[in-house]
Amino acid sequence: MNNLQLWQRYQDWLYYNEDLGFYLDISRISFDDATIEELKPKFDRAFKDIDALEGGAIANPDENRMVGHYWLRDPDLAPTPELRQDIIDTNNSVLEFQRQVHRGEIHPPSGGKFTDILSIGIGGSALGPQFVAQALAPNDPPLKIHFIDNTDPAGIDRVIAGIGDRLETTLVSVISKSGGTPETRNGMLEVKKVYQDRNLDFAAHAFAITGKSSKLEAIAEREGWLAIFPMRDWVGGRTSELSPVGLVSAALQGIDIKAMLEGAKTMDALTRQHSLQDNPAALLAMAWYSAGHGRGEKDMVILPYKDSLLLFSRYLQQLIMESLGKEKDLDGNVVNQGIAVYGNKGSTDQHAYVQQLREGVNNFFLTFIEVLEDRTREYVEIEPGITSGDYLKGFLLGTRTALNDKQRDSITITIPKVNERIVGALIALYERGVSIYASLVNINAYHQPGVEAGKKAAASVLDLQKKVVETLQHASAAMSLEELADKAQVSQEIETVYKIVRHLNANERGIIVQGKIGQPNTIKVSWQK
Amino acid sequence: MNNLQLWQRYQDWLYYNEDLGFYLDISRISFDDATIEELKPKFDRAFKDIDALEGGAIANPDENRMVGHYWLRDPDLAPTPELRQDIIDTNNSVLEFQRQVHRGEIHPPSGGKFTDILSIGIGGSALGPQFVAQALAPNDPPLKIHFIDNTDPAGIDRVIAGIGDRLETTLVSVISKSGGTPETRNGMLEVKKVYQDRNLDFAAHAFAITGKSSKLEAIAEREGWLAIFPMRDWVGGRTSELSPVGLVSAALQGIDIKAMLEGAKTMDALTRQHSLQDNPAALLAMAWYSAGHGRGEKDMVILPYKDSLLLFSRYLQQLIMESLGKEKDLDGNVVNQGIAVYGNKGSTDQHAYVQQLREGVNNFFLTFIEVLEDRTREYVEIEPGITSGDYLKGFLLGTRTALNDKQRDSITITIPKVNERIVGALIALYERGVSIYASLVNINAYHQPGVEAGKKAAASVLDLQKKVVETLQHASAAMSLEELADKAQVSQEIETVYKIVRHLNANERGIIVQGKIGQPNTIKVSWQK
Repeated sequence: MNNLQLWQRYQDWLYYNEDLGFYLDISRISFDDATIEELKPKFDRAFKDIDALEGGAIANPDENRMVGHYWLRDPDLAPTPELRQDIIDTNNSVLEFQRQVHRGEIHPPSGGKFTDILSIGIGGSALGPQFVAQALAPNDPPLKIHFIDNTDPAGIDRVIAGIGDRLETTLVSVISKSGGTPETRNGMLEVKKVYQDRNLDFAAHAFAITGKSSKLEAIAEREGWLAIFPMRDWVGGRTSELSPVGLVSAALQGIDIKAMLEGAKTMDALTRQHSLQDNPAALLAMAWYSAGHGRGEKDMVILPYKDSLLLFSRYLQQLIMESLGKEKDLDGNVVNQGIAVYGNKGSTDQHAYVQQLREGVNNFFLTFIEVLEDRTREYVEIEPGITSGDYLKGFLLGTRTALNDKQRDSITITIPKVNERIVGALIALYERGVSIYASLVNINAYHQPGVEAGKKAAASVLDLQKKVVETLQHASAAMSLEELADKAQVSQEIETVYKIVRHLNANERGIIVQGKIGQPNTIKVSWQK
Repeated sequence: MNNLQLWQRYQDWLYYNEDLGFYLDISRISFDDATIEELKPKFDRAFKDIDALEGGAIANPDENRMVGHYWLRDPDLAPTPELRQDIIDTNNSVLEFQRQVHRGEIHPPSGGKFTDILSIGIGGSALGPQFVAQALAPNDPPLKIHFIDNTDPAGIDRVIAGIGDRLETTLVSVISKSGGTPETRNGMLEVKKVYQDRNLDFAAHAFAITGKSSKLEAIAEREGWLAIFPMRDWVGGRTSELSPVGLVSAALQGIDIKAMLEGAKTMDALTRQHSLQDNPAALLAMAWYSAGHGRGEKDMVILPYKDSLLLFSRYLQQLIMESLGKEKDLDGNVVNQGIAVYGNKGSTDQHAYVQQLREGVNNFFLTFIEVLEDRTREYVEIEPGITSGDYLKGFLLGTRTALNDKQRDSITITIPKVNERIVGALIALYERGVSIYASLVNINAYHQPGVEAGKKAAASVLDLQKKVVETLQHASAAMSLEELADKAQVSQEIETVYKIVRHLNANERGIIVQGKIGQPNTIKVSWQK
């Protein structure tokens, strides 16, 4: 196609919404009319699925759950008056909490105001809040946020050290639907201990965001924490950014959560349309389908040309990969679906791997995100008539052309600026894109059965460790690994036994290892008496 | 294979180096003896290539350059006495600069000591320093580092706002081999302007890291900057972390750069071995080759189970993708090589996309990085006999098993702790792994011809913008996009003209647009008089 044909294709397929100032361009994805024709029945079904889901159908059959994240921003859609009222009340309680904290009505035991938030959560309880903090928090927020999103002891130590003496004026947010997620529970226990060691009252600094009747709710109630906000079973972790999971910390940082909700609601309405060309999420799903032939053959590389959107791709990794990465379709066939997602930001990543994107293995399609507003203060010319922002735009357009020249597919999303309303809209756009794509390829986008296996395997490693330690503590002499595994009655697990020994040894936990630790067949293991 | 067979395979293939406490396990990559036999002649050649490269051969034929990053940590290997002395002198000058800054002998014009570093650079001039700062900087470093690694005006504004009044005691590091990289030049000009606006002497805060006779060197000399450190043409950007590019800011942050260099030197010696099983980089390259059949069929997912190594995968994206992502092999055949790299950290990413890794599209192999030391302070039990670190270990081992159960390949690297020596060794390991893999697939790993096309296309967008603005400024009436493109004699570029108009319009640069901006065929464009 020559440039003028491309320009015609661009105009033919350009989606624009004036209200949001939002553009979606899929003209550089290689699909044709036959693709559209082929997909028509699939889209008809996808649009019906959306209606059913929003109407309160059991859209997550494996877990027998409704999927209601759309109701969060438009409570009138909720299937019952009780749910509707619950959503409204919850959003009001978030805003009320924010007001009381900002005014100092809820304050540290020592007086004054809270200055920091320490957010403890993982997965959907971290990725959304991290993305939104990076994208939207003002330079000098009323409360500064920090995250513990792992069970790495050194990582926890570093976050605590970074907060320093301000721990006294730090609100601790613990986010876990069940309260049983080990990383989050461990983070909470580690932080609680630090508060205790400093003679600070942890409960007077803490609030919980958790499911009804969860372990975490019980703890928060028993200990008298500052507040408890709900996580509903009809909101999945990866679609919880516009529930209290994301809203509480955003509001505390001075981010306008009403505008976020309104932006998402606006996009939800646009992506409810039963017409491919009038529905940006359907266009997005169509582009994904065409690029990877509905089998995830191409990775999705996400490049926002705007520093504040750096974490969007990490957020989307979870939303897209956990939703679409499924072994079986809804009919039980093995399909091994999914789309791999990565990316950081442009033009920075051009200096990292555009070399490969342009010349190397053609196993990806790129999504450019263009932000029209360069900066909020007045523009600065870097040379006559040209700004830094013109360069940024030039790199985006230049790379788009250079990739197209080499038959590398790309999508371009254009937004007017990075603000609350647009970020809400982007979140809603991708949530719906995922829903529609899942319908196209006939999978359940709302469960995550594969996560359990790793968790169970991890729990069995801890069980094994207890057996190993007990066996060693009761042994009279040093043992080889084989002897140790046999005595602990886990002879099949000798490789894991070795790794447990190696880890205990490195952390001076009471184990004694003779021989060469790097040569498993030379070592003898015992316990300090 | 049952567990005991896997244990045997683990021991058969385990690489261990006692000096570094370093382990490499490729037993969960599905290769067999036939693969090894088939690769033997390729490895023989790869080992010869290493010797030639280290001996000063023109290993980068397209650019007629030697490839000498190995000499940086072992100057005795340099091919001439002059090069050897130059490396030694440069490393000494870095340490001397660090001492003078730390002691306050080099100080801000207002007196006292420098408190912050603002590092301006992109690609290899940012990714290494960012990774190392995150991995190794002490909690309370003598100088705190900030990065401008893009030409995003809002991003630059945010970094400057974050530094605030400390700009007066901030050392500005400008890193660019040619001085012509637009992102870096723009960052420098923007920062310089802020210094001027605050009546601060920019030159008295700045130092450069740049190539001989570069534009940047000329500016730094003319303006009398604090120091100039060299970037040599035999060190590529993506292998420059152990040159002044990485060393100066590391040293200023209180990181032991001698230990980094020593760790790299130690690993270089290990990866010089002409024997697959005794050479960890060769084993790594073999695993990559087996996983993706030497054609990059599988993405490389990197998961360090340690928060401080979060940025390692971003560092490796450049090192691996820019080195291996090549259109042609050394004989000129079109091969479209490369390996896509992504990942953040474990166990965090388990809650993002292990669902897809275990159940979805099998288009990846995983690299676990295990750190044996949990934390530097005494361990804390989270439940009887169990620490947060035990959980982290359990998640790693559990996920490795869960993936292996589903025939998903993985590599496991184990290191004793995250310190300077080990980070130096990891960098050297992957640098050599890339060199060896490039030999196996017969490509030049040391150039990046595909990056030019995007840069040229970007430059042409800026030219186009100038033409568009000039045409508008001289026009007597508002024009349609077609008329504008015709008058500017760029009718083939009408799509880009539209985007330029849209961007200028959003930033109030003097353009007037009538009609609906989202419907290109409705708009008329003119310029403010």
